[in-house]
Amino acid sequence: MLAGKTRSVSSKLLGVIEIFTASDVALSLSDIARKSDLPLATTLRFVREWVAWGGLIRLDDGRYAVGTRLWEVGVQAPSLQSLRNAALPFLDDLLVGTRQNAQLAILQGFETLYVEKISARNSTVLMSRVGMRLPLHATGVGLVLLANSGQNYIDEYLELPLKKYTACTVVDPRQVRQRLASIRVTGFVRAEEELHSGVISLAAPVHDRSGRTVAAISAVVSVEQRNDRSLDMMVRVAGLGVSRALGFRGSRVAP
Amino acid sequence: MLAGKTRSVSSKLLGVIEIFTASDVALSLSDIARKSDLPLATTLRFVREWVAWGGLIRLDDGRYAVGTRLWEVGVQAPSLQSLRNAALPFLDDLLVGTRQNAQLAILQGFETLYVEKISARNSTVLMSRVGMRLPLHATGVGLVLLANSGQNYIDEYLELPLKKYTACTVVDPRQVRQRLASIRVTGFVRAEEELHSGVISLAAPVHDRSGRTVAAISAVVSVEQRNDRSLDMMVRVAGLGVSRALGFRGSRVAP
Repeated sequence: MLAGKTRSVSSKLLGVIEIFTASDVALSLSDIARKSDLPLATTLRFVREWVAWGGLIRLDDGRYAVGTRLWEVGVQAPSLQSLRNAALPFLDDLLVGTRQNAQLAILQGFETLYVEKISARNSTVLMSRVGMRLPLHATGVGLVLLANSGQNYIDEYLELPLKKYTACTVVDPRQVRQRLASIRVTGFVRAEEELHSGVISLAAPVHDRSGRTVAAISAVVSVEQRNDRSLDMMVRVAGLGVSRALGFRGSRVAP
Repeated sequence: MLAGKTRSVSSKLLGVIEIFTASDVALSLSDIARKSDLPLATTLRFVREWVAWGGLIRLDDGRYAVGTRLWEVGVQAPSLQSLRNAALPFLDDLLVGTRQNAQLAILQGFETLYVEKISARNSTVLMSRVGMRLPLHATGVGLVLLANSGQNYIDEYLELPLKKYTACTVVDPRQVRQRLASIRVTGFVRAEEELHSGVISLAAPVHDRSGRTVAAISAVVSVEQRNDRSLDMMVRVAGLGVSRALGFRGSRVAP
């Protein structure tokens, strides 16, 4: 957003829609105007354009929420389609093996974006949700994605203030770097109660045909399953399985 | 689209993105210009705005495809989130019961829009894909959605020319109406080889708290499973299960 400067019509139109996030699912017209930094009349004009197109819907209480049309176009993203198709059977296998939660995430900006999440009935309730972003340093999938990013990206990320979510969140840049180096060797991470207590995330990378890390897969279980080390190998093998389905030919399951 | 008339900047910007569909995943600049009915220079300007925002990406071959940003916003649609969360466990159950395919679809315009699809390994390969639209009269989910629509909507749909996909596709409006009446009584449909041969779709409606039909769920199996009538009840119960998870309190499983 270029608040204060001259903004194009396109940038204003997109500014109105991009403020709808997992934490702001329904917004009033004045919320939208404030968050997108536009006058109320201008906001109303753009909101109406989005409603006419199906990108926004007006709820019974007068607030606005995202309509299904944006999803319909957005889900055509080739990277998402192939990733999702490759990953779903393996996410299913992780669910069968853990009876908890299985997730798939990609990098978006300096955060993880959850692309897929399946949960068993009565599983540990998680903060994550499909379409939600969470911090890289406090999640299993995030650490895996960060570890497999370029050095400049890692340096930039570690210059940001890292939020401490629990007593277990590792926020010291030096310690994070050591951890990332270890992930690069083992192709695996176990994040224990680092985002919220009671929850352990086991994550492994997903590589594409060229070997690039395009996503991370995780099993998210309860701390009571802490001593079940068979879960580690299960997640590593699932990550490699998705990679194989994407055409990856290397071998990354370290002993 | 208002081709030929004066179109607003917003309508042009949205016109550029809406042409990306399941059958047109990657398009060249000239394809985009032609399909969105804009001059090449104007198209380039809008495409660049989309690329800068993350709504489009430029592929290695110079064509454009949808980026992940639109999906990220679109997936926040509250109806999709709640529907998906409610349906996933039941789709999983259908997969366990059939070892084939389970699908969830909603109405979009005069078509079905596939919201969720899970397939077993080695299942019958289907035409449908998440984000794809298919015709109402030739699919199980479509017939269920059509049967539960208003009379005006049904009349309008049946005035359209109905395509015959296979020898089994029912296209005679009178026959379709009889079928819809039967679906309204039984809350169920079995569509045998009506979209492509070799495939049977068993579908049931999903109701929300208010009793309105908001989606349809289906198991899609091979014709070899034709005589397994236990599948019918499995799909009906799954539809009712999703409805219950959405707060539906009625009873619609007819004997």
